[in-house]
Amino acid sequence: MDPELDISRILLDLFLMYALATLGSEVFQRLKQPAVVGELLAGILIAGLALTIRSPVYDVVAEIGLIVLLFTVGLETRFSSILQVGRTATLVAVIGVIVPFLLGYGVMAAAGQSSLQAFLLGSALTATSVGITARVLSDLGVARAPETCVILGAAVIDDIIALILLSVVSGAGRGSLYVTDVAILAAAAIAFTVFVALVGTRATRRYGSLLEKLHLHDAPFVTALLICLGLSAAASLLHLSALIGAFLAGMAFAETQDRYALEERIQPIYAFLVPFFFVVMGTKVDLGTLLKPDILSLALVITLLAMVGKVVGCGLAAMRMGRFRASIVGVGMMPRGEMGIVVALVGLRLGLIGDDIYGTIIFMALVTTLVTPPLLKLLYHRAKPTPSAPTPALEGQPACER
Amino acid sequence: MDPELDISRILLDLFLMYALATLGSEVFQRLKQPAVVGELLAGILIAGLALTIRSPVYDVVAEIGLIVLLFTVGLETRFSSILQVGRTATLVAVIGVIVPFLLGYGVMAAAGQSSLQAFLLGSALTATSVGITARVLSDLGVARAPETCVILGAAVIDDIIALILLSVVSGAGRGSLYVTDVAILAAAAIAFTVFVALVGTRATRRYGSLLEKLHLHDAPFVTALLICLGLSAAASLLHLSALIGAFLAGMAFAETQDRYALEERIQPIYAFLVPFFFVVMGTKVDLGTLLKPDILSLALVITLLAMVGKVVGCGLAAMRMGRFRASIVGVGMMPRGEMGIVVALVGLRLGLIGDDIYGTIIFMALVTTLVTPPLLKLLYHRAKPTPSAPTPALEGQPACER
Repeated sequence: MDPELDISRILLDLFLMYALATLGSEVFQRLKQPAVVGELLAGILIAGLALTIRSPVYDVVAEIGLIVLLFTVGLETRFSSILQVGRTATLVAVIGVIVPFLLGYGVMAAAGQSSLQAFLLGSALTATSVGITARVLSDLGVARAPETCVILGAAVIDDIIALILLSVVSGAGRGSLYVTDVAILAAAAIAFTVFVALVGTRATRRYGSLLEKLHLHDAPFVTALLICLGLSAAASLLHLSALIGAFLAGMAFAETQDRYALEERIQPIYAFLVPFFFVVMGTKVDLGTLLKPDILSLALVITLLAMVGKVVGCGLAAMRMGRFRASIVGVGMMPRGEMGIVVALVGLRLGLIGDDIYGTIIFMALVTTLVTPPLLKLLYHRAKPTPSAPTPALEGQPACER
Repeated sequence: MDPELDISRILLDLFLMYALATLGSEVFQRLKQPAVVGELLAGILIAGLALTIRSPVYDVVAEIGLIVLLFTVGLETRFSSILQVGRTATLVAVIGVIVPFLLGYGVMAAAGQSSLQAFLLGSALTATSVGITARVLSDLGVARAPETCVILGAAVIDDIIALILLSVVSGAGRGSLYVTDVAILAAAAIAFTVFVALVGTRATRRYGSLLEKLHLHDAPFVTALLICLGLSAAASLLHLSALIGAFLAGMAFAETQDRYALEERIQPIYAFLVPFFFVVMGTKVDLGTLLKPDILSLALVITLLAMVGKVVGCGLAAMRMGRFRASIVGVGMMPRGEMGIVVALVGLRLGLIGDDIYGTIIFMALVTTLVTPPLLKLLYHRAKPTPSAPTPALEGQPACER
């Protein structure tokens, strides 16, 4: 039997990955740091010590984990909430995508890379990983403050924009990038998104109760998983990212999720499969390459641009909320995580980028994620002597639904 | 990219498998038949119409599904209940394993097959798939009757014996079978089982509360999954079946499972992954081979022996409960499912058996599973005009815990 497919070895490796991911997650949570950092570092350690074999099976397990992750994010995203989120959040999202994208694109183009590579790196800098910020703000007792609402709303729009950019990268991946291709792929991605968001949301709202008539055990949940797989496959076959399908499937069920406790039921699958995604991503980092002086300086420059891009872009867009809240919004939008790593992975898989750029993007995701919580705490600490007192919501502003 | 590992295609195939499994399950449940039959038939249909590609990735997904299945069965099995289950159940289990094993072995040896092949087929006939019987008896309102207790207790012991036999098959798989090898492997399997059952159960009982001190989200569940993967890998590396590890991990946590709702939390993973196991098993049936007259007659003979073996073996062992209850026990122990299929799969993977014997075993599992529910209903219907009235428990016999 092919050693890459030897089941004893695969089981052992899966155990090692899950064990180290769990350990990393535990250690980082004890240090009051995001669990995802521990999982990525576990993967880097595994690759560094060559603890596991390289098998394509792990990529598939990671991909399924990623689909579950995006589906869960989708379940937390109500289409109606996005529509309500208001001008500020949209502005923060859009400007907060454009500025880092242009910075990333510019630096790569200036370094003489191809337009596709520059596009890819720019895209990797766009999507905010809002989980970490949300957790920190909620720990600080400001979960329903207006700046939190803006950050959460903007991050969702961010995710959608990043998924569309990713679809462009995936679709254009096999050739060089022309403006017309970008336009066509972006149009396809937007059409798919709008179609599924509108039709899917209405369908689950109108026909959701039919699921209760099925004899199938746990029918609503099983159907939701089925639609998640189906839309992921459909998106993938349309040369869009499979993830946009998973995300939209989640969003379509977000309106009915309370009734069937879908979010609660997806949690065990999340706990089982999602860590594999981050560990496998970590194993793809080649520390030897990353630690070379020229690559490391590139990584530092990109990381700095990633931070400046969001603070300036989002901060300016939020300036009408006042300087303090605008700075919170800017810093809160800094962490990059899943989506940036996904873009990097797609680039690596298509051969668009090498170990150097891949390592750079992971480095950027790790640093922006690690730096944000202390910075946010510092900002709140400076502004108010009692950071634990909840900030009152702005008049006329609805409380966050999320 | 290797077409067997093309992610779009894999997602499409996983969607197709899950969709048809769900459909098959729904149809068979509406017909008041076991869902597993629908899932197996979905797989046979997929293979017949060549709807999916063949990729080793699906075998790994199926294997993970199977590990989840055995872990769940383990979670439902309290070691203390097995110890209490009494002489009758043990006798039913042991004689109910010996008779079908000897019948299967004998017919294959008489047909001139090697001793290893005969051993494999004999083993495939041993393990009762008790889920179906339990469901039927509970629908008939006799879930706590003494015959039900005996069936459930015996089925658990059956599972353990079958796992040990499977370990012998896996371990001996690469050569021919000597009595000393069998003895050594059986001893290793028993030692592993006893060790994990004793130490594992005590460890979770004594140190289980430490899990609550972890910072990890959902720590008890994550730890249980981790130990499941770890024991599966350990068993596999010891040349035992990975499944015995998964089963024992579940049993070790069975004592603490109420506190952490582990059974409830494993359900979503079960709903997501286990159907893939049965579909993939179905795809391995070559209908063309199975429908050849000589193979079909072999399959019919084996199926008949499988049924007679359990009815006679288990029925005789239970005779001291009276003829009516003994016949219920005999018929109730007839269905073969997961474990028989697993033995067949291991045999196929190691090249010990071909498509003909594999198809025969799947056929036997399908038929014994389909035939049992109506037979049980018939037996109860004949014996009592009011089958819905619960049977009183025998004096001195504790009510079933399961």
